[in-house]
Amino acid sequence: MRSPVHRVSLGDAWSSRVHPDIDSERRTQSFDVERLTNLLDGGVENTMLRRKVESIIRNDPAFSLRGHYSMTQNELYEAAVRRRFHLEMVARRLGWPKDGRERDYAYRAVSGNLNLTLQDVFLNALRSLGSDEQIAKWDQLCQDYQIITSYAQTELGHGTYLKGLETEAIYDPATQEFVIHSPTITATKWWPGDIGRSATHVLVLAQLICSGAQRGMHAFIVPIRSLEDHTPLPGITVGDIGPKMEMENIDNGFLRLDRVRIPRENMLNRFAQVSPDGTYKRLGTEQSNYFGMVVTRVKILAHGALHDLQKACVISVRYSAVRRQSRLRPSDPEVKILDFQAQQQKLFPQLALSYAFHFLATSLLELLDRSYGSILSGDFRCLPELHALSTGVKAMITDLCAQGAEVCRRACGGHGYSKLSGLPTLVNRATAACTYEGENTVLYLQMARFLVKNYLKARLSPGATSQQPLPLSVAYLTAPDLARCPAQTATDFLCPELYTAAWAHVATRLIKNAAHDAQTLTQSGADQQEALNQTALLQLQAAKAHCYYITVKTFKEAVERLDNEPANQEVLWRLCHLSALHGILTNSGDFLHDGFLSGAQVDMARTAYLDLLPQIRKDAVLLTDAFDFTDQCLNSALGCYDGNVYERLFQWAQESPTNTQKNPAYEKYIRPLVQRRTARL
Amino acid sequence: MRSPVHRVSLGDAWSSRVHPDIDSERRTQSFDVERLTNLLDGGVENTMLRRKVESIIRNDPAFSLRGHYSMTQNELYEAAVRRRFHLEMVARRLGWPKDGRERDYAYRAVSGNLNLTLQDVFLNALRSLGSDEQIAKWDQLCQDYQIITSYAQTELGHGTYLKGLETEAIYDPATQEFVIHSPTITATKWWPGDIGRSATHVLVLAQLICSGAQRGMHAFIVPIRSLEDHTPLPGITVGDIGPKMEMENIDNGFLRLDRVRIPRENMLNRFAQVSPDGTYKRLGTEQSNYFGMVVTRVKILAHGALHDLQKACVISVRYSAVRRQSRLRPSDPEVKILDFQAQQQKLFPQLALSYAFHFLATSLLELLDRSYGSILSGDFRCLPELHALSTGVKAMITDLCAQGAEVCRRACGGHGYSKLSGLPTLVNRATAACTYEGENTVLYLQMARFLVKNYLKARLSPGATSQQPLPLSVAYLTAPDLARCPAQTATDFLCPELYTAAWAHVATRLIKNAAHDAQTLTQSGADQQEALNQTALLQLQAAKAHCYYITVKTFKEAVERLDNEPANQEVLWRLCHLSALHGILTNSGDFLHDGFLSGAQVDMARTAYLDLLPQIRKDAVLLTDAFDFTDQCLNSALGCYDGNVYERLFQWAQESPTNTQKNPAYEKYIRPLVQRRTARL
Repeated sequence: MRSPVHRVSLGDAWSSRVHPDIDSERRTQSFDVERLTNLLDGGVENTMLRRKVESIIRNDPAFSLRGHYSMTQNELYEAAVRRRFHLEMVARRLGWPKDGRERDYAYRAVSGNLNLTLQDVFLNALRSLGSDEQIAKWDQLCQDYQIITSYAQTELGHGTYLKGLETEAIYDPATQEFVIHSPTITATKWWPGDIGRSATHVLVLAQLICSGAQRGMHAFIVPIRSLEDHTPLPGITVGDIGPKMEMENIDNGFLRLDRVRIPRENMLNRFAQVSPDGTYKRLGTEQSNYFGMVVTRVKILAHGALHDLQKACVISVRYSAVRRQSRLRPSDPEVKILDFQAQQQKLFPQLALSYAFHFLATSLLELLDRSYGSILSGDFRCLPELHALSTGVKAMITDLCAQGAEVCRRACGGHGYSKLSGLPTLVNRATAACTYEGENTVLYLQMARFLVKNYLKARLSPGATSQQPLPLSVAYLTAPDLARCPAQTATDFLCPELYTAAWAHVATRLIKNAAHDAQTLTQSGADQQEALNQTALLQLQAAKAHCYYITVKTFKEAVERLDNEPANQEVLWRLCHLSALHGILTNSGDFLHDGFLSGAQVDMARTAYLDLLPQIRKDAVLLTDAFDFTDQCLNSALGCYDGNVYERLFQWAQESPTNTQKNPAYEKYIRPLVQRRTARL
Repeated sequence: MRSPVHRVSLGDAWSSRVHPDIDSERRTQSFDVERLTNLLDGGVENTMLRRKVESIIRNDPAFSLRGHYSMTQNELYEAAVRRRFHLEMVARRLGWPKDGRERDYAYRAVSGNLNLTLQDVFLNALRSLGSDEQIAKWDQLCQDYQIITSYAQTELGHGTYLKGLETEAIYDPATQEFVIHSPTITATKWWPGDIGRSATHVLVLAQLICSGAQRGMHAFIVPIRSLEDHTPLPGITVGDIGPKMEMENIDNGFLRLDRVRIPRENMLNRFAQVSPDGTYKRLGTEQSNYFGMVVTRVKILAHGALHDLQKACVISVRYSAVRRQSRLRPSDPEVKILDFQAQQQKLFPQLALSYAFHFLATSLLELLDRSYGSILSGDFRCLPELHALSTGVKAMITDLCAQGAEVCRRACGGHGYSKLSGLPTLVNRATAACTYEGENTVLYLQMARFLVKNYLKARLSPGATSQQPLPLSVAYLTAPDLARCPAQTATDFLCPELYTAAWAHVATRLIKNAAHDAQTLTQSGADQQEALNQTALLQLQAAKAHCYYITVKTFKEAVERLDNEPANQEVLWRLCHLSALHGILTNSGDFLHDGFLSGAQVDMARTAYLDLLPQIRKDAVLLTDAFDFTDQCLNSALGCYDGNVYERLFQWAQESPTNTQKNPAYEKYIRPLVQRRTARL
């Protein structure tokens, strides 16, 4: 286990020989890479289980990703369904438990190229919104793939504004059925994954109408395809939405419902019920039907865009240790580009953030775990904070992961534009996450409303918060605040308390600004919605600063807990410092604005930041090794563990259909063009 | 001409009926859209000629882009070569002049999906580096497509560091030939367009060795494929580099040369000559062989990434005028998303920059035109400034266009992720421009060296600059500078002199910082290269601030010249203000750092910025109409002139191969999975 070469190799001609330029990066280890991997995995048992699954996947040609980057949309879809099918066969053969981690690890091992995953979203919603009887009926059918499920919320003309959804579910007491209907073209469900060509049952979000009254959005299980022959059921029009920026393996689809009847029992009824005669009874709050979305949003944080950024770091750092360019002295060999400050200041903040976000995502998952039971049993007190965190943190992680993956891609120069580097796919996947499960701007604004509300609560009636304290994540809004940063040297900026307090100060100030400006507008006659609209820019700034504060604070607390592993703690402290200082320097205006930092202090922070770069440089390759991604799941000619980038890129290019197939244009166009005149050279 | 509906329509079922939501945007025109189009085209004659070419392209099915987004790499390549072939047939039939604008307009009309374009790069180099005899021999052959040409500089292991290129050209006086050779795998030429499957003749950049001495990089014309049957000539290994992020129509290729012999006359010899006996004679400077690159870099600014951003603005602004979301009041209809501040602050800075960069690119082209003749005749005095501008301005335009196109794409929510929106292609093309023709970080650093050099010249020996003044673009470094911004109200920030001076101040300060820190390092013993490396971050900041200053100043001067068109001047002033203020607000730390702006003044600038948004809002759709892109070249279901977004998206999706072809996975995987057990629902 200490020598991961065999584990991560692709087993091709080059993987047995590690390139000396990357080998030398691993010679002296200032920290324990394996223990860091265990920490990221959540324990040594998880690392072992994960590697066991990865080894099964790697040794089974059914899961190969070879040729992936040249496949058509139809081929990608077929291959991803094939992998799902084989995985289920393997799981049965090996007796993998239903809710075990094995399938998650398999998903990671094939880099997400596995279809029928919307099942998870369906299950999150079913388990959050369904009654115990409904869960008992549908959960197993779904997990066994006796039905193939998806979740259909977004419509062609409607996204984040859920009240605007047009799909109707009208209750008919005569037959005790709901009539599900798409009244317009814009009501067409659009985007749900696995719907285009796969799903048999869909959880449709629709406006409930019973006894003539509108009751808001509810969830309904609707069979859409025959279990016999997969043809659309009567009243159903369904298909694929066509080519996409990436993720073409998934059959994102459209769905139109023409007065489709489903039994009364198919409305998920933990928090709302319709009795046989059409009487409506709400058991939860108005927001409780959004709980399924919150759960899904939190659960995707730990992989999704974060894995994309981590992989982009692995590939770009390894490549930068092998790629050489320019000479510092005429007699020297060319320099590894990882030794340039210009390269370090691109890559290392991304590396730092990809650790920071790991701890942030983990902490949010833990919060969800702690709250889940009480919410299901009808205690919604922690839901507002959980909802707010799920919005803001999702937006920040996906924004910065998408941006960071692109930074890593571009840092690999021209080769980063080749799909064979793996980087274009990572970038184009990460950027998708900025839109799905809630568009980021809308999510930031939801976070901002939560912040402003709590700020006003704390400032307007300080007594109230002593009785009912603010949620933990915003408790700092009432804490004592420094007006000026006390730092006097660059080294002072390597103090976690100092930079955490700096972020708290800026977040508080920006939240206050947003609250104040909105209040001023309403006091001068603007209505609430208009005041919110006209202060959107300020709210976005406030939400982003708050989320960055949470990121830094969570990272700091996670590193503090590693007291018994001083070497690993030290290497993570450097990343923690770097992520905090990177944020300060790229938003220095926010810190200078009220004089909290002086210009001289910003210069000190920059000095501290620049001094960290060569320290992180020494550990950079090992810090990316610690993520422990297999070469198979990186699927990158530039990023393999062995560092033989040029040979692999050259060979992978030879295997592309543009070389293996005949030139389709020569006879028809090039020859007639060139030989149009008889001149010869 | 006043009603461009017919001109821009795709001629499909919806294009005859303009959506009322976008029709209403065009009802009141505060400025003359047609005159603005003429201004962008460089004159009414150009507008007319362009539309004539566009009409030819639109009416010829050979140029159709239908189905483009679902094509494989081979299909895209074939289609793009087919279009080139047909275009040449059209050009001959209509007698288009060789160096006329018609082909450029055709290229625009098919949105760049036209191959054999590396000819232009070949010609730029030939005309810049070749002797009159060489130009006489090769120029016409190339323009007539009797040969298909490309330009091969980058190698598998070498990019921007040209001294590191490994390809050799050893002169053999016995036969009076050059022997062109790729000594290693990393010496393989990698990335040149049109080489993979098309080119017959390549301008190969190689290290010249004659009489045993290394003479640096020179350019050699090398035939690589037979003109009879297109097979690779002896010693040539050539092919395609495989799948890419975008631009898959182009056959970017690799090329290995195994001691290929070419005649002595095939070395371009305007600035350097090898006599029959192998005597080397330099006629230019060491840099003159880079002149071809400078020319190409300037010439791509006016289209390339800038067109991508402009189109992204057209699509996202039109869509935002049709898309509705949320209600400001319960009784109102949902609001056009273009009315939200959060949307405006995304899109309008991009719109402003896409005008700003038009004027910047134009001014640089004019500078090139003015300098070209004197450089060719051996007067290199203006080359350093032209070179520096070609680096920094290229880097800034492509950086911000790529970033801006992605902002526009995301502003369209989920639909922006569909390739049918056209936006993913624009984003992934624009980001390519950040790397090709010089990687942006490297280019910024080259600009920074020019700035630091001129700053030191001006400050260290002020007398010298009175005799030999600084180049015009850096003359501000010696101009009187304000220590504090005099603005007292938000309105003060709408003064072009004020914000131009603010940018000059910040650029000067950052250039000074970079120069000062590098000097301190060298004085304390670091060598020159190491000092540059350790101040890279500061240099990047300085170069970016300088380029933004040039952008704002050029925009301001262009708008000032419109005195006789007050309405158009006014609408452009708003965009000029917005681009300057957007830059100040996103870099406010640089302005606050030394107290040039106070926090209160930054707030004023933000107020001025926010007040501009609703003013620009009124003209937004018309400002994007003025770019006058045809629906065909936008190729976007979201961005057509008529605004019928949902109908078109729905239909285009139906036509995708994922719907027209049978589900490839059902029989093999889905059915066995679902029907594995006999349970029925």
